[in-house]
Amino acid sequence: MRKKKVPEVVVERMAVYLRILSELDTDDPERYISSQELGDLAGVGAAQVRKDLALFGEFGKQGVGYQAQMLKEELRRIMNADRPINVGLIGVGELGTALARYNLRRVADDKDYPFRMAALFDNNPAKIGRRVECLEIFPPEELPARVKEYKIKMMLITVPAAAAQEAADLTIKAGIKAILNFAPAKLIVPPQVKLIQSDVSLQLHQLAFYL
Amino acid sequence: MRKKKVPEVVVERMAVYLRILSELDTDDPERYISSQELGDLAGVGAAQVRKDLALFGEFGKQGVGYQAQMLKEELRRIMNADRPINVGLIGVGELGTALARYNLRRVADDKDYPFRMAALFDNNPAKIGRRVECLEIFPPEELPARVKEYKIKMMLITVPAAAAQEAADLTIKAGIKAILNFAPAKLIVPPQVKLIQSDVSLQLHQLAFYL
Repeated sequence: MRKKKVPEVVVERMAVYLRILSELDTDDPERYISSQELGDLAGVGAAQVRKDLALFGEFGKQGVGYQAQMLKEELRRIMNADRPINVGLIGVGELGTALARYNLRRVADDKDYPFRMAALFDNNPAKIGRRVECLEIFPPEELPARVKEYKIKMMLITVPAAAAQEAADLTIKAGIKAILNFAPAKLIVPPQVKLIQSDVSLQLHQLAFYL
Repeated sequence: MRKKKVPEVVVERMAVYLRILSELDTDDPERYISSQELGDLAGVGAAQVRKDLALFGEFGKQGVGYQAQMLKEELRRIMNADRPINVGLIGVGELGTALARYNLRRVADDKDYPFRMAALFDNNPAKIGRRVECLEIFPPEELPARVKEYKIKMMLITVPAAAAQEAADLTIKAGIKAILNFAPAKLIVPPQVKLIQSDVSLQLHQLAFYL
């Protein structure tokens, strides 16, 4: 199945399955996981798990389930998480700094964590040349060159809402095809660019439902 | 349908529908929206939209769709977003500060935004008594009393991973039934407490799929 054709909700669930498998002890070669168990942990039905995975291949055996280690490796491959991916961040305010530090800690804690913060960008002259731990802050003018230098494949946007479209345009012009936007702004991106909107308001709304 | 029985993925989509309707110009009483249009904007099929909404009532007319303003008001009511909800935050580091400021801006920009940051908590003596803009920082010991005083219904947890369970336990003991956890830690909560995990890694994994 072509990647573009996979429904976004399936990709979301695949990321959840991968997280669950990463948290399991999958070192034991005898560890099998059924679609029921995986579904229970992911909060979806067993049939949905089987349907989602079937989009990508034949991983399980009827009545036995999936060999956990193998399934984890397959999902890592499908999700491109089987190799390091360099990430940039534009907008080194409080949120940007927190995300950069979080990433450094995750990488230090988990050798398999694929996302490596490689460079930070900010247009505030007072911040340029400074560092967040080991990560240097570059001006936006250097973004195209630094994206190439650091082989950055994904960009986190943590600028204020009013500056977000400009940051996205600059990112796209530098050849980046995957953006995670934290600014509360609706960005316009060309069809070949994948944009995910990180929105705390959406999660607050979900939570409020249960009050 | 009892709230507990609604699948989590439906609640997620309902939050997305509400956001879409909030962004539409729904002041025009002649503005109708079809399940197809709503589905296109939400990235799901029209049948899924109809099925989701049907769980909560009869809102549309065959061949006409939903009256947009009415549907928005219904969704706000269903999602408990039709009245202010006071929110607390524990862990006033970079992420916590960024989220608190973000909330104050959202409330200032949008009179209908239901989530009101009411009080902050941190166990660092250097931070206690200080403020993030208008919001005072209280010590954890005061959390139960401040939750009552400020009628806090939801808590954001932005402490380090190692402190997250303790923060959750304190929150739950104070009677809070809805937690949004940003710490990269798997929290254990009793069944009557709703926990949503905010996880940037999950979104990075989703994004990497498209590389």
